Amino acid sequence: MGIDPGTQVMGYGLIRVLDNKPSMLAMGVMNLGKYGDHYLKLAKIYTRIIGLIDEFLPDELAIEAPFYGKNVQSMLKLGRAQGVAIAAAISRDIPIAEYAPLKIKMSITGNGRAAKEQVAYMLQKILHIPDEDMLPQLDASDGLAAALCHFYQSNVTTGEKKYKDWKDFATHNQDKVRK
Amino acid sequence: MGIDPGTQVMGYGLIRVLDNKPSMLAMGVMNLGKYGDHYLKLAKIYTRIIGLIDEFLPDELAIEAPFYGKNVQSMLKLGRAQGVAIAAAISRDIPIAEYAPLKIKMSITGNGRAAKEQVAYMLQKILHIPDEDMLPQLDASDGLAAALCHFYQSNVTTGEKKYKDWKDFATHNQDKVRK
Repeated sequence: MGIDPGTQVMGYGLIRVLDNKPSMLAMGVMNLGKYGDHYLKLAKIYTRIIGLIDEFLPDELAIEAPFYGKNVQSMLKLGRAQGVAIAAAISRDIPIAEYAPLKIKMSITGNGRAAKEQVAYMLQKILHIPDEDMLPQLDASDGLAAALCHFYQSNVTTGEKKYKDWKDFATHNQDKVRK
Repeated sequence: MGIDPGTQVMGYGLIRVLDNKPSMLAMGVMNLGKYGDHYLKLAKIYTRIIGLIDEFLPDELAIEAPFYGKNVQSMLKLGRAQGVAIAAAISRDIPIAEYAPLKIKMSITGNGRAAKEQVAYMLQKILHIPDEDMLPQLDASDGLAAALCHFYQSNVTTGEKKYKDWKDFATHNQDKVRK
């Protein structure tokens, strides 16, 4: 499971890995802007993540985590959003990994500065997501991208060699790539 | 219950209010410096707060929350520590209030710039804490101070007039002050 926890929008995505082939289980987005109260936003993040964990029983949680922000105020709020997400995983004993946005983009598209649209395009291609299942919200893609990045980085299902990105994985696993 | 969640040390304190008279139930401190891993620190904060909530069943949680810090990195970490603490309260449906350090010091001592030692001294006096029960760690006092500040601000047990600090409360409640 991958999430991109923000203070206004939280994106999430779940992938299933069978025979080392990742496919999409679910993706979604929570708009938090409508909740005026700061604690209500944090409560919504917490309960949604707990709900997703209990529904899909993910083995690991990957978080998109920017390490720099424009000011201390916004970083404190972002830290709190990340904190409640981390607490949800802790409360269910799920290991957590975090990746910088640049790392995730690099892992999915080969370009750390790729546009969000390009990341979404690659996700749809790699995970063979039908158009009707592909959410247009780019924040949802960010959550899914974190999950796929984590799969490439940890290759959790096999414990084999780690791949640095999709191209590297595909090159070494031609038999596992769906044509 | 009051907490002062930091990334190196977390202080906490619990007060009981009977007939509008606050007294200390417990105070303590967690040294997180010994846990090298960032997630382990967050997990320790989360599980300790859950444990305290389940043991003492507090009605409300007050958090000492600085709003400014020296850099975005430290604020992100502080935000995460606050976030897991907030999530613990959310998971047990406990209302949360937060107070800036200056506000807490002002509320306890009448001086927003008071030294930590002075806050500890006033806490011991107001809450009638015997010397042997008064923890020397000033971080523990900070948690207790947050709890007492919240009592003054919300006067939760009576729903009556709010008091701006100890002096104001004492002036209007001579019958409730233990001599």
